[in-house]
Amino acid sequence: MTEKIIIIGGVAGGSTAAARLRRLNEESNIIIFEKGEYISFANCGLPYYIGGTITDRDKLLVQNVKDMSLRYNLDIRIFSEVIKIDRQAKKVFVKNVQSGEIYEETYDKIILSPGARPVVPPIPGIDKAKTLFTLRNMEDTDRIKSFINKHLPRKAVVIGGGFIGLEMAENLHDQGIKVTVVEMSEQVMAPLDKEMAAIIHNHLQEKGIELILGDGVKSIENNGQSILTQKGNKMETDLILLSIGVRPENELALQAGLRTGKRGGIQVNQKLQTNDPSIFAIGDAIEVNDFTNKQPTMIPLAWPANRQGRLVADIINGKDVQYNGTLGTSIAKVFDYTVASTGNNEKILNRLGKPYEVIHIHPVSHAGYYPGAVPIALKLIFDKTSGTIYGAQAVGKDSVDKRIDVIATAIKGGLTVKDLPDLELAYAPPYSSAKDPVNMAGYVASNIMEGEVDTIQWHEIDRILADGGTLIDVRRPEEWENGHITGATSIPLDELRDRLDDLPKEETIYVNCQVGLRGYIAARILAENGFKVKNLDGGWKTYETALQ
Amino acid sequence: MTEKIIIIGGVAGGSTAAARLRRLNEESNIIIFEKGEYISFANCGLPYYIGGTITDRDKLLVQNVKDMSLRYNLDIRIFSEVIKIDRQAKKVFVKNVQSGEIYEETYDKIILSPGARPVVPPIPGIDKAKTLFTLRNMEDTDRIKSFINKHLPRKAVVIGGGFIGLEMAENLHDQGIKVTVVEMSEQVMAPLDKEMAAIIHNHLQEKGIELILGDGVKSIENNGQSILTQKGNKMETDLILLSIGVRPENELALQAGLRTGKRGGIQVNQKLQTNDPSIFAIGDAIEVNDFTNKQPTMIPLAWPANRQGRLVADIINGKDVQYNGTLGTSIAKVFDYTVASTGNNEKILNRLGKPYEVIHIHPVSHAGYYPGAVPIALKLIFDKTSGTIYGAQAVGKDSVDKRIDVIATAIKGGLTVKDLPDLELAYAPPYSSAKDPVNMAGYVASNIMEGEVDTIQWHEIDRILADGGTLIDVRRPEEWENGHITGATSIPLDELRDRLDDLPKEETIYVNCQVGLRGYIAARILAENGFKVKNLDGGWKTYETALQ
Ligand SMILES: Cc1cc2nc3c(=O)[nH]c(=O)nc-3n(C[C@H](O)[C@H](O)[C@H](O)COP(=O)(O)OP(=O)(O)OC[C@H]3O[C@@H](n4cnc5c(N)ncnc54)[C@H](O)[C@@H]3O)c2cc1C
Ligand SMILES: Cc1cc2nc3c(=O)[nH]c(=O)nc-3n(C[C@H](O)[C@H](O)[C@H](O)COP(=O)(O)OP(=O)(O)OC[C@H]3O[C@@H](n4cnc5c(N)ncnc54)[C@H](O)[C@@H]3O)c2cc1C
Ligand SMILES: CC(C)(COP(=O)(O)OP(=O)(O)OC[C@H]1O[C@@H](n2cnc3c(N)ncnc32)[C@H](O)[C@@H]1OP(=O)(O)O)[C@@H](O)C(=O)NCCC(=O)NCCS
Ligand SMILES: CC(C)(COP(=O)(O)OP(=O)(O)OC[C@H]1O[C@@H](n2cnc3c(N)ncnc32)[C@H](O)[C@@H]1OP(=O)(O)O)[C@@H](O)C(=O)NCCC(=O)NCCS
Repeated sequence: MTEKIIIIGGVAGGSTAAARLRRLNEESNIIIFEKGEYISFANCGLPYYIGGTITDRDKLLVQNVKDMSLRYNLDIRIFSEVIKIDRQAKKVFVKNVQSGEIYEETYDKIILSPGARPVVPPIPGIDKAKTLFTLRNMEDTDRIKSFINKHLPRKAVVIGGGFIGLEMAENLHDQGIKVTVVEMSEQVMAPLDKEMAAIIHNHLQEKGIELILGDGVKSIENNGQSILTQKGNKMETDLILLSIGVRPENELALQAGLRTGKRGGIQVNQKLQTNDPSIFAIGDAIEVNDFTNKQPTMIPLAWPANRQGRLVADIINGKDVQYNGTLGTSIAKVFDYTVASTGNNEKILNRLGKPYEVIHIHPVSHAGYYPGAVPIALKLIFDKTSGTIYGAQAVGKDSVDKRIDVIATAIKGGLTVKDLPDLELAYAPPYSSAKDPVNMAGYVASNIMEGEVDTIQWHEIDRILADGGTLIDVRRPEEWENGHITGATSIPLDELRDRLDDLPKEETIYVNCQVGLRGYIAARILAENGFKVKNLDGGWKTYETALQ
Repeated sequence: MTEKIIIIGGVAGGSTAAARLRRLNEESNIIIFEKGEYISFANCGLPYYIGGTITDRDKLLVQNVKDMSLRYNLDIRIFSEVIKIDRQAKKVFVKNVQSGEIYEETYDKIILSPGARPVVPPIPGIDKAKTLFTLRNMEDTDRIKSFINKHLPRKAVVIGGGFIGLEMAENLHDQGIKVTVVEMSEQVMAPLDKEMAAIIHNHLQEKGIELILGDGVKSIENNGQSILTQKGNKMETDLILLSIGVRPENELALQAGLRTGKRGGIQVNQKLQTNDPSIFAIGDAIEVNDFTNKQPTMIPLAWPANRQGRLVADIINGKDVQYNGTLGTSIAKVFDYTVASTGNNEKILNRLGKPYEVIHIHPVSHAGYYPGAVPIALKLIFDKTSGTIYGAQAVGKDSVDKRIDVIATAIKGGLTVKDLPDLELAYAPPYSSAKDPVNMAGYVASNIMEGEVDTIQWHEIDRILADGGTLIDVRRPEEWENGHITGATSIPLDELRDRLDDLPKEETIYVNCQVGLRGYIAARILAENGFKVKNLDGGWKTYETALQ
């Protein structure tokens, strides 16, 4: 049977689906409708073309209509917006956005991959802001690029500190523009928890980016020449980039009576089928199940879109496969740092009321004695009883992607934190340590599970000290003098065994060191000598970064 | 109970065991005997200190006797060789190698971590070779370094193309020395299969290293000033580095009647216990089970030594844990390239008579449109029916470690090649592609499992053509002109649908492209049109690299 399959949206999800459909079946009649001028462009590369890291615009066009049509025998129609689906008659209405002409096309199956568009809130003055841009596609990119070339802006405000916002902050900065980032919440990079984002806050400031946290934009004035925030900050600007998130392109689905979720994502089953079995939906426009907590969520990233694009073609061709949910693994380069995460963070788990345990470690990217080793802040969130890995976050200047990928793989393999020490990872001095950071995270987490040590978190110790608790800082005197937690007492680790008599046996003693390792050793010594003890997880480093 | 635990060997396995023993138990009486001057040195860093990448010798000394004794309350005795174990009397005989004095020490438990020493075969003339060195420890390192400083060698021969040999070749080359590598087998880097090693052969030559493969050293002449090979090559040299492998330090074990395996490794159970339940053994000296094929093997690497060191301490302290075998994940930097592998290679599987399937792909390290993307040669070996991953090999200039680590993790998680597409790996343009190379390997392997395509290997096509087979090269004319397989016919992919009538319907048609992707698409088009077809796995690139 020759099926007629209509794909709506010709970029990440849509093109991938088309290619796989054809590879599986030479007979299918496949039409791609794309309302823009381009299919298969590299959305993710756009900021870097604006910033000049990618110099050749053509490189962003991963495939073009002519080559793709020929190779995969596809009917690709650009400038063609599907404006209506008639499910009864099994036809779509297509508008040629250049000529305005509208025509119909019948279908057997539809794959919706319309993506998501930048959220544009009704901020007073926004409609008159001639300096304001959002970034989604080639057209936006060309607009921003030519605005910069023509007007040579000297100051820019990026509204929103998510990954597109920060990538744009960096790329505008690379163009010699002084950038301010305004972010409503108390931190940038929502996939991270606050103490991890704090590393990035520092780094952005170090790089000369002005960071305004916990403040939203109240109004845009003067045709976009100035911005007033809710807390009364006022700033002049030559360019505004609005990137406070995206919302699913669900109008077509809504019009067709397809079910959508709370936040508007098109709902599909594991076969990526909407409530109309002839209509499939993939990519940024759909609601997915969070792999970790099984709740519906929206994860507008390229991996899911590509994965689902391949799967939907398989499903349409009768293969017994399904989509198993999205872990939400994500990554971004922020100047010299890499920020990556997978699974759930504390904020999500708290919202769901799920108990969890956390560790923070600060290993080096590879053997410390080999040049170029840099610290990685690595956080692991897990269930203390079962060892189930809920999520991980990492921030550092090298090899952060590797560690998060390994943990994401461990999660998909159903491994627990107790299995992480058994991961046999490639070691030579330029690449890792004989105990890789992921192994180490497993050791540290296992010690908590097995009761070898109890820990407290960076946000708990101040209150404990205020309530009269005892904190022993076991670092060397020089380290202590460079900064320590107010209220702590200094006893260097190597003197501890000789000074046990100075310590109270009844109350819990808290210990800390620089990153947690020596605090852990101290805790073991104390525990073995009959003391009740807890170690400050992540040590002074996590505490200081989070609270500075 | 205060147990008296004697550790023999104070470096990777031994020191790790000691530290963990103490962290678990403040009471144990722990003695480390180390026959050399140093404990806890960075064996793996030695070549880089010789080459000058690591400039500070002290950095190689990860721990020293004073600090380690103090921190972990250990009795560490250097220059102390255990020369005999009396299992009946439960005591060891220790020789102070400086004074010659011998004394006894009783024990409750022994942990053997004596390591492995370089193999030194009885090559004629070797005993008189004043220029010949092996490299295992600080003493060797100091010797080589001072020889270089004093004699300023201009030519060196490295005997053995394993990872230490190639690291030393690079580091000697960094010292301005002209290096020749002599390797008995037809390839360097035994963990790789031949076509993967071929990439490194090229690169070594590119860097000015002379490579003599398939030839062994017959004799060393002239006090080590010249070398004669079995095939009659004769070369002058100022320095010889012998690194043809290591053998377990098993003398003590043999003397004590502990069981050893075929290749001399001390045999232990999953609790790392020898046939004497009071004596444990870990590290390079032991025989382990190959995680993939369950056969006994020897894998003298730092990860297993460290892992076993921690485990043995846990086991002695009553924890219910065990060692589950060694996957053999390994990695080395060879000039600009990284070479890494995990699991079994074809050579091992062939030796065991195990059937397997292979794929080769050539993805880029990260999005092609973002600067710095370089090709990775990635090979995956798996079972065609179950999808079980037997092993993987990767060679490239960037991010090779990440891909092998992810696959090693997948193996430990019991994932099959069909699960690899579902690995949700971190994607942004500087780090990966929306379909990561590991996902892609999963796609390519799944297509074989699901019968979407049949492949043949680089070493099969010449014979097929000689027997009259038809090979269609589907690359563009320019590519064809740059080199192609003799006997192939050129039909560019995008013309294939129009030229089906030119092709024979009865016989199997073979197709090839540059890396395998277009050949696969061609194979799909042909298969869908009723042809019998097989794609050349890895394309021209794998073929040409392997056979040049
Ligand atoms: C600037 C930027 C940077 C990014 N960086 C990353 C990154 O580093 N990593 C990452 O994982 N993800 C990144 N993403 C997200 C990633 O690009 C998306 O997740 C992915 O493209 C989603 O694929 P999709 O097919 O769902 O939608 P899209 O790729 O957006 O494609 C949807 C297409 O459908 C078309 N369309 C919509 N409605 C209709 C209609 N009615 N008729 C016809 N055509 C229609 C649209 O014009 C659009 O071209 C980035 C996105 C942007 C904008
Ligand atoms: C140059 C070099 C580079 C390397 N690079 C890497 C790499 O990049 N990646 C990797 O994974 N591995 C690498 N290795 C291997 C790694 O160092 C070993 O696998 C690891 O050190 C083994 O640990 P072990 O405790 O078994 O033995 P060792 O670390 O060798 O320690 C054994 C110690 O026992 C002592 N000893 C032996 N017999 C006695 C006795 N009877 N009494 C007292 N003491 C005794 C020895 O003097 C020795 O110091 C490298 C090794 C070398 C030599
Ligand atoms: C360009 C685009 C259409 C390509 O889609 P695609 O053909 O599915 O993807 P690729 O070109 O990577 O090829 C993958 C196919 O090649 C096969 N393949 C890859 N390397 C191979 C090799 N060496 N040998 C054999 N087959 C190979 C894979 O198995 C897969 O085929 P399958 O799906 O039938 O199993 C699509 O990725 C796209 O539009 N990308 C740009 C938009 C985008 O993704 N944006 C977000 C990120 S910036
Ligand atoms: C130096 C040496 C003695 C250290 O051994 P070690 O103490 O086991 O290892 P580390 O210093 O990495 O510390 C690991 C311990 O710290 C703990 N730890 C690490 N970071 C921590 C943190 N941030 N918070 C709490 N605990 C932490 C781990 O859980 C682990 O303890 P455990 O085993 O009780 O669970 C040993 O690794 C050695 O001799 N190395 C050099 C020789 C060698 O390995 N050569 C081959 C490679 S070159």
